[in-house]
Amino acid sequence: MARIVQKFGGTSVGDMDRIRHVAGLVKAEHDKGNEVVVVPSAMSGITNGLVDKIHAMSPLHDTREYDVVVATGEQVTCGLLALALQNIGVPARSWLGWQVPINTDDVHGKARIAGIGTENIVSRFAEGQVAVVAGFQGISPRGRITSLGRGGSDTTAVALAAALGADRCDIFTDVDGVYTADPRIVAKARKLDKITYEEMLEMASQGAKVLQTRAVELAMNMGVRLQVRSAFEDLPGTLVVDEDEIVEHQVVSGIAYSRDEAKVTLVGVADEPGIAAGIFGPLSDASVNVDMIVQNVSADGKRTDMTFTVGKADYARAVAVLEGIRDTVSYRSLDLNPDVVKVSVIGVGMRSHAGVATIMFQALSEKGINIQVISTSEIKISVLIAEEYTELALRALHSAYGLDAD
Amino acid sequence: MARIVQKFGGTSVGDMDRIRHVAGLVKAEHDKGNEVVVVPSAMSGITNGLVDKIHAMSPLHDTREYDVVVATGEQVTCGLLALALQNIGVPARSWLGWQVPINTDDVHGKARIAGIGTENIVSRFAEGQVAVVAGFQGISPRGRITSLGRGGSDTTAVALAAALGADRCDIFTDVDGVYTADPRIVAKARKLDKITYEEMLEMASQGAKVLQTRAVELAMNMGVRLQVRSAFEDLPGTLVVDEDEIVEHQVVSGIAYSRDEAKVTLVGVADEPGIAAGIFGPLSDASVNVDMIVQNVSADGKRTDMTFTVGKADYARAVAVLEGIRDTVSYRSLDLNPDVVKVSVIGVGMRSHAGVATIMFQALSEKGINIQVISTSEIKISVLIAEEYTELALRALHSAYGLDAD
Repeated sequence: MARIVQKFGGTSVGDMDRIRHVAGLVKAEHDKGNEVVVVPSAMSGITNGLVDKIHAMSPLHDTREYDVVVATGEQVTCGLLALALQNIGVPARSWLGWQVPINTDDVHGKARIAGIGTENIVSRFAEGQVAVVAGFQGISPRGRITSLGRGGSDTTAVALAAALGADRCDIFTDVDGVYTADPRIVAKARKLDKITYEEMLEMASQGAKVLQTRAVELAMNMGVRLQVRSAFEDLPGTLVVDEDEIVEHQVVSGIAYSRDEAKVTLVGVADEPGIAAGIFGPLSDASVNVDMIVQNVSADGKRTDMTFTVGKADYARAVAVLEGIRDTVSYRSLDLNPDVVKVSVIGVGMRSHAGVATIMFQALSEKGINIQVISTSEIKISVLIAEEYTELALRALHSAYGLDAD
Repeated sequence: MARIVQKFGGTSVGDMDRIRHVAGLVKAEHDKGNEVVVVPSAMSGITNGLVDKIHAMSPLHDTREYDVVVATGEQVTCGLLALALQNIGVPARSWLGWQVPINTDDVHGKARIAGIGTENIVSRFAEGQVAVVAGFQGISPRGRITSLGRGGSDTTAVALAAALGADRCDIFTDVDGVYTADPRIVAKARKLDKITYEEMLEMASQGAKVLQTRAVELAMNMGVRLQVRSAFEDLPGTLVVDEDEIVEHQVVSGIAYSRDEAKVTLVGVADEPGIAAGIFGPLSDASVNVDMIVQNVSADGKRTDMTFTVGKADYARAVAVLEGIRDTVSYRSLDLNPDVVKVSVIGVGMRSHAGVATIMFQALSEKGINIQVISTSEIKISVLIAEEYTELALRALHSAYGLDAD
């Protein structure tokens, strides 16, 4: 007997037939005598529809009310999946975030899980009951519904697997694993049998949508065995594992991209100590995540330009914050550009290989692609380029790093 | 300063513009310095869509999961309306059933309110905050989401008005008041300025959709001043009042109809003591509401026919129950007919006037309409007829009782 968490993405529960199919996959594990927790996402399209309604009502919305609205998507799937399971003879009940409870902090819209009470669910395992837990949502210390940020159902699943000491956490999705690059763009992309937690973390945080960043981070920290696999085909997926489980490393394991970036430049900022804090402090207070940051050297030692990127979801809020601090920070103008894409090459092999960046810059240069911002970490190099070059850049880099399938 | 509960129906919050319009109506009361609680329904069509999904998944569904799914409709409107209010400078927050809390029993799908904790909401009045409370939902003693039955938002509003000692409970809807008959069918129907609680109760329970039965019952018992008015036009509505506030009574105040009926006949039931309990006990255990009941006199003293009606929502469940008790009750066959309508004439004046039923039977007979079942109370007479005669019957009765507008 094993304890298993199964997470299903939005496409996997996209209509009634697919929810029935998912119920069948759950039943298969349940029939083996396993203790099963299922975490469904909202049906595909539903969350976007809800977010559109919120934006139509109020671009600068109260994130507490945002959470009240968007949490309904998973609530609906949860109820329907519990019914589908009952229909095929599997005892099941739905659990909403506040019922489990999944306790979070009160950073609405992107809350972090603080702890999970597992007694309720575990006590039902003895009765053979499957727990259908709403992904993406929790409850704040003030008793309000919180959401964990887009893709948060992955985090729910991994956190539940960790709290329950589960033997496995299967992430069922509409692709059959993790690829060297998005196969919809790069036809020669290959599926990876295994990937390290660290690479997966960079892939996810650099835009690969197959897993949420925090879910991977949590799985790495808590030692949760993660598998990304297809909800539609019965194929082995990609295992996310410790580095020592992979014998031969490629220098670069994958290439990710993110269109969810907007570039902001504060032109003519005073070049003096404390100015960065004066800009990024207020942004952080408004829960705006800043990603790449570049500060140019100032010619005269008085004024400089500060460039950074923010997520598109935070863009309007970031601009409002920056307009609000214009008097204290005293910049000359705001230069805004949402038409950018961040492309990243990722691989733990970079640690022991030189010249990885050079290959990237050359490959992009050969295609005439201008690099606007560069940022690096130990195992990844990211560049910001004009969005129109996305596909061209991805294919060029995939070839340049020798990742193309035969 | 007054304390006011405002309830808005599904059409009134049917899209973003209408939610904004509702926010304006709330602001108008708030600007007068009043303490305001708003109870929005789900956006029109949403609840039906959710119910369709549930039925597609499972006709004989677990009502606990039904409630999890359908409660999302009001949750969405609540969040959006709170945002709309904040947008126009009115401090507001959403409250879900479990947050208020609105405590109910655990009869899922049609739970009854057991008590409302008002401290949380009242404490925010001091800060000028409007409470946007999700209609139709509560929390059971076991901590699960319950729903109050279709139209349950009216009950939420009245129960809140009672618990808060509100000065008024305004029910905003897509019609401008209570009519002598459905004006979409009876062109000569007239709007009533006032109607008694008792008549309103019969109108509602006999199918007039303008107010939920239990809401009226609760308002009557708790002395809540109720007004039915238009969400779209600034017109006086219909006041629901005590009988002594109405000086001149018509014998009949209104005519209602309900298509939400299905007729069930158990043919050849043993005519012996305890047989009714053997049939209606199991139906009641399955939370099937039985309405009109007729037992024919048996010719031979051994076998008889038992006819009754159930709500269409309970129809499949009722049939399943009846098939399950076939061995114990031993009837010959089940005769099922969902194509029926119940037409009722209602008026407190009936108490002191004879011959009211005769007018009804004659009017229907003149149009060649066969009466299948009759049931009466002190202030109403209901008949079950074939559904195809609905409009003909309503217009004939409206004229026969002298209700036609000039």
